[in-house]
Order: sequence, then C-alpha cells, then structure tokens
Amino acid sequence: MGAKETVEVTGHLMDSGILSRILDDIRDYGGDYVIEKFDVGHETHDPSSARISIEAEDDECLQRLLMRLQTRGVNQLTTGDAVLVAAPRDGVLPDGFYSTTNLETRVRLEGRWFDVENPEMDCGLMVAGSDTDQPRVRTVPMSDVRTGMQVVVGASGVRVTVPAPDQRAEAFPTSGDSATERPQTVLVRQVADSMRQARAGGRRVLWVGGPGIVHTGAVPAMVALIEAGFVDVLFAGNALATHDIESALYGTALGIDMNTAQGVEHGHEHHVRALNTVRRSGSIGAAVADGTLTSGIMHALVTHERRYVLVGSVRDDGPLPDVHTDVIEGQRAMRAEIHDVGYCLMLATQLHSVATSNILPATVPLVCVDLNPATVTKLADRGTSHGRGIVTDVGLFLEQLALELVPDYRRG
Amino acid sequence: MGAKETVEVTGHLMDSGILSRILDDIRDYGGDYVIEKFDVGHETHDPSSARISIEAEDDECLQRLLMRLQTRGVNQLTTGDAVLVAAPRDGVLPDGFYSTTNLETRVRLEGRWFDVENPEMDCGLMVAGSDTDQPRVRTVPMSDVRTGMQVVVGASGVRVTVPAPDQRAEAFPTSGDSATERPQTVLVRQVADSMRQARAGGRRVLWVGGPGIVHTGAVPAMVALIEAGFVDVLFAGNALATHDIESALYGTALGIDMNTAQGVEHGHEHHVRALNTVRRSGSIGAAVADGTLTSGIMHALVTHERRYVLVGSVRDDGPLPDVHTDVIEGQRAMRAEIHDVGYCLMLATQLHSVATSNILPATVPLVCVDLNPATVTKLADRGTSHGRGIVTDVGLFLEQLALELVPDYRRG
Amino acid sequence: MGAKETVEVTGHLMDSGILSRILDDIRDYGGDYVIEKFDVGHETHDPSSARISIEAEDDECLQRLLMRLQTRGVNQLTTGDAVLVAAPRDGVLPDGFYSTTNLETRVRLEGRWFDVENPEMDCGLMVAGSDTDQPRVRTVPMSDVRTGMQVVVGASGVRVTVPAPDQRAEAFPTSGDSATERPQTVLVRQVADSMRQARAGGRRVLWVGGPGIVHTGAVPAMVALIEAGFVDVLFAGNALATHDIESALYGTALGIDMNTAQGVEHGHEHHVRALNTVRRSGSIGAAVADGTLTSGIMHALVTHERRYVLVGSVRDDGPLPDVHTDVIEGQRAMRAEIHDVGYCLMLATQLHSVATSNILPATVPLVCVDLNPATVTKLADRGTSHGRGIVTDVGLFLEQLALELVPDYRRG
Amino acid sequence: MGAKETVEVTGHLMDSGILSRILDDIRDYGGDYVIEKFDVGHETHDPSSARISIEAEDDECLQRLLMRLQTRGVNQLTTGDAVLVAAPRDGVLPDGFYSTTNLETRVRLEGRWFDVENPEMDCGLMVAGSDTDQPRVRTVPMSDVRTGMQVVVGASGVRVTVPAPDQRAEAFPTSGDSATERPQTVLVRQVADSMRQARAGGRRVLWVGGPGIVHTGAVPAMVALIEAGFVDVLFAGNALATHDIESALYGTALGIDMNTAQGVEHGHEHHVRALNTVRRSGSIGAAVADGTLTSGIMHALVTHERRYVLVGSVRDDGPLPDVHTDVIEGQRAMRAEIHDVGYCLMLATQLHSVATSNILPATVPLVCVDLNPATVTKLADRGTSHGRGIVTDVGLFLEQLALELVPDYRRG
Repeated sequence: MGAKETVEVTGHLMDSGILSRILDDIRDYGGDYVIEKFDVGHETHDPSSARISIEAEDDECLQRLLMRLQTRGVNQLTTGDAVLVAAPRDGVLPDGFYSTTNLETRVRLEGRWFDVENPEMDCGLMVAGSDTDQPRVRTVPMSDVRTGMQVVVGASGVRVTVPAPDQRAEAFPTSGDSATERPQTVLVRQVADSMRQARAGGRRVLWVGGPGIVHTGAVPAMVALIEAGFVDVLFAGNALATHDIESALYGTALGIDMNTAQGVEHGHEHHVRALNTVRRSGSIGAAVADGTLTSGIMHALVTHERRYVLVGSVRDDGPLPDVHTDVIEGQRAMRAEIHDVGYCLMLATQLHSVATSNILPATVPLVCVDLNPATVTKLADRGTSHGRGIVTDVGLFLEQLALELVPDYRRG
Repeated sequence: MGAKETVEVTGHLMDSGILSRILDDIRDYGGDYVIEKFDVGHETHDPSSARISIEAEDDECLQRLLMRLQTRGVNQLTTGDAVLVAAPRDGVLPDGFYSTTNLETRVRLEGRWFDVENPEMDCGLMVAGSDTDQPRVRTVPMSDVRTGMQVVVGASGVRVTVPAPDQRAEAFPTSGDSATERPQTVLVRQVADSMRQARAGGRRVLWVGGPGIVHTGAVPAMVALIEAGFVDVLFAGNALATHDIESALYGTALGIDMNTAQGVEHGHEHHVRALNTVRRSGSIGAAVADGTLTSGIMHALVTHERRYVLVGSVRDDGPLPDVHTDVIEGQRAMRAEIHDVGYCLMLATQLHSVATSNILPATVPLVCVDLNPATVTKLADRGTSHGRGIVTDVGLFLEQLALELVPDYRRG
Repeated sequence: MGAKETVEVTGHLMDSGILSRILDDIRDYGGDYVIEKFDVGHETHDPSSARISIEAEDDECLQRLLMRLQTRGVNQLTTGDAVLVAAPRDGVLPDGFYSTTNLETRVRLEGRWFDVENPEMDCGLMVAGSDTDQPRVRTVPMSDVRTGMQVVVGASGVRVTVPAPDQRAEAFPTSGDSATERPQTVLVRQVADSMRQARAGGRRVLWVGGPGIVHTGAVPAMVALIEAGFVDVLFAGNALATHDIESALYGTALGIDMNTAQGVEHGHEHHVRALNTVRRSGSIGAAVADGTLTSGIMHALVTHERRYVLVGSVRDDGPLPDVHTDVIEGQRAMRAEIHDVGYCLMLATQLHSVATSNILPATVPLVCVDLNPATVTKLADRGTSHGRGIVTDVGLFLEQLALELVPDYRRG
Repeated sequence: MGAKETVEVTGHLMDSGILSRILDDIRDYGGDYVIEKFDVGHETHDPSSARISIEAEDDECLQRLLMRLQTRGVNQLTTGDAVLVAAPRDGVLPDGFYSTTNLETRVRLEGRWFDVENPEMDCGLMVAGSDTDQPRVRTVPMSDVRTGMQVVVGASGVRVTVPAPDQRAEAFPTSGDSATERPQTVLVRQVADSMRQARAGGRRVLWVGGPGIVHTGAVPAMVALIEAGFVDVLFAGNALATHDIESALYGTALGIDMNTAQGVEHGHEHHVRALNTVRRSGSIGAAVADGTLTSGIMHALVTHERRYVLVGSVRDDGPLPDVHTDVIEGQRAMRAEIHDVGYCLMLATQLHSVATSNILPATVPLVCVDLNPATVTKLADRGTSHGRGIVTDVGLFLEQLALELVPDYRRG
C-alpha cells in the first residue's frame, strides 16, 4: 500500500448506520483504515465526528476511494485547491474526473470555496471563468461536456455536506426496512403535511407519474389536486399522458376501460387513435385549445398552466407530439424544471422516478409510492438523500391524499 | 380406450371460458372426447349447452375424470342411483370415493334426488339414514370419517349446479387477469354495496384477517366497522389477535410500533408479554371482563358479542388461550361458523384465507385483499366460485371502506 | 343499433378460450351479437368455426369493433376491397385508419389479396404503388407516416390469420396461469430445444436483455452461448452494456461488485468511468479494437460479429456512444434487425421486452424470463402470440441453458 | 426519568450497523442515553467496545429495555445474581419474566455463571435445581410452563454473547440489502461448501421445505441429495409430503401435473386420493413398507432412515397420518430434532421457515431460498443470527446444488 490520506466526517454517525457504510466502502475499494480519533456524541442528539486515516494501493485508487467516500459526506482533513484539467473531447471527461454526488458540494479554487450551483449525481464538475476572479462551478453531465471545458479531477479541493436527517419523516421506514407493514393513513397525512409545507415555503411540488395513476382510477383525485394547486410540474412518459387522454376521449364508461386492463396498452386501438388525434391537433395544448381534449390530468395541467415534461421510451407508440423522443434532450428538459422544487412525489413508475432521482439534489425530500416493493426500495434507499417509500396502490393513495388536501373533495 | 360416458353441461359456456377448461381437463386425464351436440346461445345472454361423449382408458380413470368434470358443472346425461360403500376405517374413505366440490350438489338415492346439506371441497359424501326413507346427505372431511359410514363412490348419481355469474362484480378482474391496475375506489364501493346487501338480506359477513390489519394502521377502521355491525364473525390466527392486543396494551404511541415493523413479531418482547398477560387472565373475553383489555379489534368483537375463531399455526408464540392449537379442531370450529354467511372478506392472510375458501360453499361471494398479487390470484381464481381480488394495502382499503360504510367515520 | 356485419372465425375456438375473448370484446365495445352458426370440432384436434352476426350503434363503432375482433383472428364473411385514404400530414394517419395486429395479414385491392410484408402491432397499413398492378402493403408506425401515403381505413378488405398453437410449448403455463410453480429444468430444456431448432432452420435467435444478466453472474454463461452461436442479435439498453463493460474493466473481484448491489447503478463511480472510457475510444467496437475492452458480453458480440441494438432511456448516464438516444430511431434500428428471427429470449428487462414484443410478428415464439411475475405475465400473455414465461432468476436460468447447449461448459 | 443502568457491548460495532440498532432501540423504548466511553477498533478487523449509560422512566421500563438490548448483545456492566420467581400458573410466566433471545446466554446464580442449555427466542428462562449446587438453566416456551417453575425475571444476572460474523457468507447480501441481484451460481457453491463443512464436522443438516419443491420439479435433485447424505432431517407441512406422494402415486407424466399448477392443491382429486391411500396404510413408513409408495422425497427419507417432522396447518386436507395436527405438539417435535444441527436450508415455505427460525439457536447458519423477496428478507434479516437469503426458484437452485454435491448427478 502506498497512498494515504486522512479524512473526517461529522454527523449522526452511529445511529444512522453511516459509519458502517463508510467502512464497507473502504473495504470494497481494497483500502485499509485506522480510526485515529472518534468523538462520540455523549447525549442522544449530539453528532459524533471521526477522523480516519485511509490507505490505498496507489494514488489512483486512493482518489477514487476518496470520491466514493464523499458520497457519504466524508471529506479530506486538509485539502488544497481543486485540480482542473481540460476535457479532451466533446462528450468525454478527462481521466480521473471527480464523479459527483447530489449532495451540497463546494470546490476550492485559489484558496476560496465556491458552491456547486446545481448538485446532481454522476456528473463531472466544470469550472467556468476559472481564469477570472468570479469563477462558477457547475455539474456537467457527460453528454454535455465540450472540448476544453475545465473539469475537476481527483478529490482534492472538494467538500460535500450531508443534509441533516428529515425529522418530519420519522414514521417512515428507514433504509433497508420493510416498507410494507406501516400505518398507511398516517403516512398519507405526513405526505400531505410536507406538500402544504413546501407550498407555504414558496417551493414547487414535482410529481413523477406512471400510467397506473389512470388505471387505478386516480384521475379525479389528481385533477382535484392540480386544481387545488398541489401540482407544479409533472414528469412522465408517453404512457401516462396517452392513457389519460384515451380515457378522456373514449372513456364513455370507466368500467369498460377497467374491465380490459390486460389489453389497455396494446391490441385495443383506443390508445393509437388517441395518439393520432392529438398528433393531428399538433400538441396537447392545441388539443385543449381546439376543444378536442376537455377533461383529465393533461387537460387540467394545460388549463391551470402547470408545467410538464414528457420523455419517451423505446416501448412507446406514437408518441404524443409533446414527448421528447431523444432521452438526452428529455433529461435536459427535466433539469430545466427542477429549480425551486421543494417536494417530489413519485407514483407508479420506476423508469421516470429513477431518472428524476438521478438529477434531483439530495436536499429535496421525495416519496415513492408503488405496489412493487422493489421499486420503492430502489428509490427510497439512495444513500443520504431524503427518500421515503410507501408500498401501496396509487389509486387509494391519491384518493386519501385528495381527501386530506382538498377541502371539498368528494363531499358534494 | 374402453370406458365411455356421455355428459352434458349448460351455462355461459363460451363467454366464461368454461368449455376450454373442460376440454383441458379431459386431455389432462388422458381422455378423449367427441362433442356430440352444441346448442349455442344465439343472443348475448342466452346460455349454451353441450353434450360431450367422453372416453377413458378404463372405468377407474373414467370415474375420476367424471368427478373432475363435475367441478366444472358437467353432469352425466343419464345417471342411476349413487353407489354407497361403507368406510373401511376411522379417517379413511372407501376406494373410489366421490371427491366433492363446493358447488351445490344433489345425490340420487333410490330414484330420488337429495341436496347435499353443506357443500365443501375435497370431502367425501356420506349418507345418513340410507336405509330409511328420509336419508340425509352431507360432506364429510376425511378426518371425520368413521368406520361403516355410507359413502358415495364414483360419479354416478351425483349432479352439481354451477352458480350463475355474479353480476355485481363486473368491474373486478376475471380469472387470470391482472388484478393490479384497477379503479380501486370503485372496487371499494362495490365491496361496501355487497356488504350492505348481505346484511339487508339477513346474511352474516365473515372476515378473515392477518396481522397486516394491525401493522397497516387499520385497527380504528375495523373497530368502526365492527361497531357499525359489518363484522359478524372473524377467522384469524394467533398473530392478528396478539398484535391487536399488544397494540392495545403497549401501543402508547402508534408511531413506535410502526417504526419497528421489522421486529414486531420477534425479538421485541411486547408480544410475548401481551400473550402472557392474556394467558394469566384466562381468555380474551376474561381480559376484557377484568379490565385488562380496553380497546382494539378483539375488544370490540367481545363487547359487541361478535364471533371469532382463532386457529393456530406452527409459527405461533404463546398462543393466546382462545387459539385452537389443533388445526383439525380449528377447521371444525370454522365449519360451525359458516352458516348463513352471505359475504366474505379476506384481508392480508394467505393461510387463513385458503383455509376458509376450502370450506366455504361456492355460492358465497368473497373478496381477497392483499398486497401480494400471488395471494390474490390464488384466492380469486378458484374455478367457478365467486372469488374476487384486489391487490392493495389493507390499511388504505379498510380506511376507504369505513368511510363508505360508517356515516360519521373520521368526520366527527 | 344500426350498423351490422357478419363475421367468421375458425380455429380451436373452445379449448383456447378465444371465443370467450371475442364475445367479451363485443360487449366491451357496446355491441351485440347473435351466433348464427357454430360448427363444432367433433374430435379432440378438430378446429371449430363460428359465424357471428354483430350489431353496433353506428358504422364508426362497427368498424372499430371489427378491427378489434381481427386481433382475435375474426374476419368479415364477405368483404370488398380495402378502402384507401391519403395521410393528411406527416406523422398523422387518416381518421378511421385500420389499426394493425402482429398477425399474418392480407389486404384486398381490386379483387386481389396481398400479404402485409411486415406485420407489427398498433401501426397503420400503407399501400405503395396502389395505382400500379404490383402494389405492396406494409405496416407503417405513426411516426413514419408521410403526407399523402395511401393508408387503409376501416376493416373492409383486411383478413388476418391466427397462428396454430405452438405444440412444443405444452408444459409452459398458458395465459393467465400462475407461472411460478413449474418444473423449471424441463422448461430450460424446452428453451434449449427451441433454440437448436431455430438455428437448424436457419433462423436467427434474438436476445433481449437487462442488466440483471450481469448482476446475477450470468456473464460467463452468456459469453459461452455467444461463442457457441446461440446469440444472433441482442436488443438492450445502456445499462446492460455499461454494467457488462464496467465488470470487464473494473471487476477485479466479481465478489466485490456483487457485495455492493445496492450501489451498483449509482453512487459508485465505476459505471461513469466505464462510460467515459468507452466514449473516449469512440464506440464499443473501437474499445475492443484498441485493446481497452477484452472480455464480457459486449466484447464477445463484437469479436464474434454478432449484431446488437442499444436503445437509451431517460434514466441513462452517459450513455455509451453506441446507444440510440432517440427512441424512435432506436425502434427503427430494432425493426431493421428482426428479419429472419426464429426465436426470441427476453431476460430480466420489462422495458426492452415490451418494446420488442411490440414489433415482433406473432409467429415468432418468445420466452420471457424474469424474477418479477408481473413482467412475465405482461409478456407471456399477449393475445394470440407465442409468448411463454418463466418466473425465475436469470443467473441460474442461463447457467442451466449453457449446460444444455454448450457441450464443454463448466466441464473443462 | 428515574431508573438508570450502565451497559457495555463489544464487537464490530460500527461496521455491522449494530450500534445504530442499539440506539434505535433505546429511543423506541422511550429511554435516553449517554455514551460514556467508546474504544474504537483502530485497525480494520479490531472490535470496538462501548459503555453506555441508559436511563428509563421507571424500573419496569428499564428492565424491559435491558432485555431488549440483550437481543443485540448488550450486557449490564455489573450484574448481581438472576432473580427467580415461581410461575403462577400452568402456561403463565411470572410478571417481568426475562424474554429470551436465541443467542448464547448465561445466567448468574449465587455468583456462578451457567450456560442456558437450549437457546431459543421468545421463551422464559427456567432454573431447575435452583436449590441444589448443580442448577440447570433452560429456555421454556410459554405453553410448557408449569406452576411453581423457577423463572428468571428482569435482566439482572443474564449475559448473552453475539456470534462472530460468518466469514464464509461474504458474497451474500447483508441485512437490508436487496437480495435479488446476486451472482447466483456463486451463492449455490457457497451453500454446497457450507453443507459439506457441516457434514465434515459431524453436524446435521436440517431442511425446511414447502410444496414448491415438488411443483418446480426438484424431486429428483432432492432425492439425489438425500441419497448422498446431505439431508439429515426435514421439517415440512402436510402439503410438501402430500404433493410428493401424489406425484409418486399418480404422476404418470410429470408434465401433466405441471400443466395444471392452478388446480394442484384443490379441485383436482389426486391429492385427496393420495391422502386417503396413505391413511389406509396407516403412515408414510407403512406405505413404503407395504409397497404402496415406491419413489419420491418421503420414500427416500424413509428408506435412508432420515428424520422428518410434519406439522399441520389450518389449510390442510387429510392430513397424512404422520402430521402433527396440534401445532404446539408439532413445535415440541421440531425442538426434539434440532440437536446437533450445523446448517439449515429453508426452501419455498414462509410458514415452516419462520417456525424453524424461532426455535433455532443464532449460531446455526441458515439460508432461505424463495421466489418471494419478502419471505427471504423476513428470514435472512433476523437480528444477529446467521441468516442468508437467495431470491430464486427452488427448482433451478436444487438442480444446481445437486450438480455441485452429487458427483454423478445427471451425468450417468
């Protein structure tokens, strides 16, 4: 072993399990450690801090381990400036690039610390104006890299801050717990409180939804929540919008659509006709404007001037004209809408939920509601972020949520 | 091939898929068939009828195939009297015994047809007073057979009637359909209607429940439904009762129990203390009487004089004094309580739900609610019976059900 | 009711359940029917045929119902020529367009019948050279429609043929059956037989795979199957290729990657470094050529000159340079590779499996292997197509498959 | 707050997450703490130790918290003798009884420490011969308590030892991890190694199995493993044995049984006839002896003189004469067979697996194999015990295991 570094970490190290994960990481990367100092929180709510000396095979291993540890909030004890290297080609980061977390991150340049403006996971860190005295540091996804961009390499000069635990979410399952046996109405109430709070604080509420919202009969509940102002922006795919519009155009009897769930997506021609109809209008907004589309979720979003970003997938028919068929363009459109998001609700879609959690800063609380426990676990258990999960049907969940948040919902 | 027989079947043969199943059965048993006559229902709601000539390797195969087909409502065209043979030993049926379905069944004795008094699956048919002119025919489970009982062998002289399709349950998934993507609030309303209807018709409502009712926070909803008269009898295991009582005795803060779902059943000593406490009182009823138990589901059942049958399993701690530790005795106790049941609700328990559906006549509508789609499929898809399934969380389901059925629930 | 039509259908109507589905469809579309004639198959393997008179509210409803019924193999008794209408705009089909199935389809033009060259679901039917005496009929996905294309509207002049049941797949669960409790080694052997048979018949074997292939340790088995010639083309996303390459580049110890499954996709920087490395080489092929990539699935495909189509999704990092980021372009690339496919294996990916089954003709047998029963049901139970499902882990499945198909696998 | 106590704990406190759980417990029980001393393991493999001062509302709370903490291996710093109280009634433990873990436990009596002979969860601790100089300490399940038994109350005088982590099981998912995406063939090999090791050490291998073993076609593999000496004792229910015997008696073609999985348990009369046949013989052993039963799992167990304990459940038909219908008697029979067990394999049964893990000491390594991730999580994640889980099909798992362990399996 050759390369060494000393790191420190502060927080609820023991009662959050975070120290276990740190030591696991060191072993996984083939490193070794000595805990040099451990200041334990004496009282229940005191944070602890640890200083750990780490050794790895060579400097490259060490740098990668240090970057890895930063995902846990572990920073180097002493640090110089960040090292910048120019990107060698469009779309390619320099070797040894710093791979980001979605935590609050600062970068040291010529002795001064600068906040990363838009924390996002699995990006590079680029410095604009590095030769000026007002440099700006931003995350850059690999596909947006341009030749010559100044990019941070190695872990030196980078510090991250782990958010404090979310006190409001105490009844929620913690990481790794089973999320299936919980007092569900209590959880719904907590989600309602968090949404009210986000709105009261002037923050936007982001929804990420799959077509299950339509199939489980939750359109009326979601429309009521849009009308009541609890939906600022929706991320979804072609399927949610298409099934919502299909239901609005052809759903003479809800029972019929629901009787035939097996064939909803294919075989039944309703949805291809719905797609063709909107394509003829030119867009969802145009279909509302020309009187083709008069109800449903997409209609409510348009008439209440809420934002939506629809990103396609390889299984799409159509798609709707509003759908981004290029997924990288779609990611860019999503990034453009996450500003000021204060709460994120992910409903019955693993694909778009993972995509969203990839770009969302760790500080945004999110809750994932899905019947599939595997989806909930994947979303709710993402390191240090504020993910929570509820394993249940979105139909009854949104019904309860509307009853909580919309005073006159279903009350005549 | 040697043995032949002609059978007939009448009903919605084509639009129910029943004819496919009949022909599948014949092939599965290695038989062959010719459809001799097929009177098709010309209009949408007409029944069809088919006459099928069946051939099997030998008479034993044929008899077994004929019994099998009776589970589909297929009867022999011409039939003599039932053949009776004395049971050779306690607990043992004679060779070639008629294996029952849970359909309405009649048996021909000396030219007269007699109703089977208590249709139940997988039993023998015993005839009491076969030498009198008032014989009675009953199902007898294998373990209740006594030496010398007169038992029907072969399919001769037995006819079954398949119930007409349940019109009320149209929005429910049919057999084999995915039960996950449904308009859930509509389904809750249909369950509520069926329960009101059963009660209006003077029939009892049977609940079968697992401990998930407690873990998902549905105790208040279920207590409200007991108080409002929608629970006549509960079948459950030791776990539901124990967790309910544990929650009543130690649940100072619901959040605490729920925070620790992983450990609820073991490790935490709450539940063993709850068990010991009730054992000291002598029974659940005694614990209510002596003031030990003052709230919860079991308390509500006792104070409202509702019936419950608790049957143990090999994983039980304790158990509570009221639990039948002998499962065969437990089945007998359950059989004694299914009279006049007009609706059955199965919630978050596969074990007790399957046990109940084994003894319930096919005419009793049942709905199974569970987060696990496999459990729902297993229960809802049992041949010709009136099973329906809802894949969702029982917590939100019971909350919605109480909102539907109990006028002032959560509105006070 | 005004509009009427008489249709006919021939096949194993009763023992396949197909007639039930037909009558369900008529009711779902609000139509009514009279079964005018029913010729029953007298012997076990005889086909039946039915002539049904159908009535719908108006002609538009009727046409849509007729198109719907064609997905079941129901054709009009008497039919004129197909009606052609010009597409009004790029990307928009004319009103009342015929919505395709993936069944073998013929179209009547001026009294002659023409085969549809490339059956695919949920498309339009376009006729090229409709004014010549050599017209050609092809499916056209909505996004490939160009203004003025001659497109079939209504069901007139279109006939479909339902494939005969797949005899080889008898042990597999049929539609709607539980697919979890099956003799799995028997199923593996049947898949092996089908693959040998496809290859012997000069047909290509198509694989559709998710990253679970890598995570469950099946890389060696799949590489052996590529080398032995059982993989002609692979459809996948960015994740399978990235994790395979990550494992090839950084998987010093397989155990390590596997110890940390939770973090495999994000947080760990291995995969972003793998992505960046291949992006620097320029493509997967280039990374093989320049010696960067020396093992794994993608390496084996490149060195054995097998085809692969990678289509991106909104959750992708990177992506790899070979990934189609535009999903509609990706679908086109997949369509270009399905010629001569004689067997399709779908492994641990719902997204790409559904996408593939959307474009695959119904005549191609496919098997879907996934731990999630919902995915298997969705894929295996698609109307009249030859879908089969196995609910199991792909790791052990591919291990067994390699043991069946590769003589010296793990024996050397 | 009134009552205080100082406790200590030693082990891999940080990298095992155990300290987090300890502090969670204290909060759950409404207690408070101060970490007085924390000796950190400086090097990677050093154990740490902590001394924690705990405060609770009153002594009863404190005693219960102390007992709870012992499930984590936390012992009181200074301890007097255990306090003994006589059981007040048959089947009832004294108030404040010590509720056991399945860890190695010692009890101090008059200054001397005695090992608990048979560690088991959720029992009381009884002292026999407490007035002699050779007292013996045993766990006693509640239902075996007899009036006047000397039972330990409170946590005083009791110490537990947490087993060291199982080094062999490193590739297995740790608590809370997803167990679905793992290199499955590696896991099978580890299970094989552990079984060889147990056998080499003269320890017995315990199997716990559900009927899925039969349905997934694993009978030949399990029979080969019985013949090769890798099954010493089997715990199961009525269903596994019945389906195995049904398959042996009627399984003319395995394909047929498997084609009809939906109906396997009910409706099909095969299983009731199988039950009746064995009941007529008198027992499974008698059915082997009289030539009725000539193949399958139960036949192999009988002819190779392996032990089996069958315990019934409320859903049973029949049952087989060998089945314990009283579940408490069944538990006693299981307890009588766990001596010298060195490895436990749990396959496709949640009910009997949980029942077994309740009575198994924490020192016995166990692996749970099931398609349902929830079952695997429940079994594998039981505090400090050596549970491991594999989410996969038991059919392919046992096939691979037989290939690993039985030299000529499928090679002859």
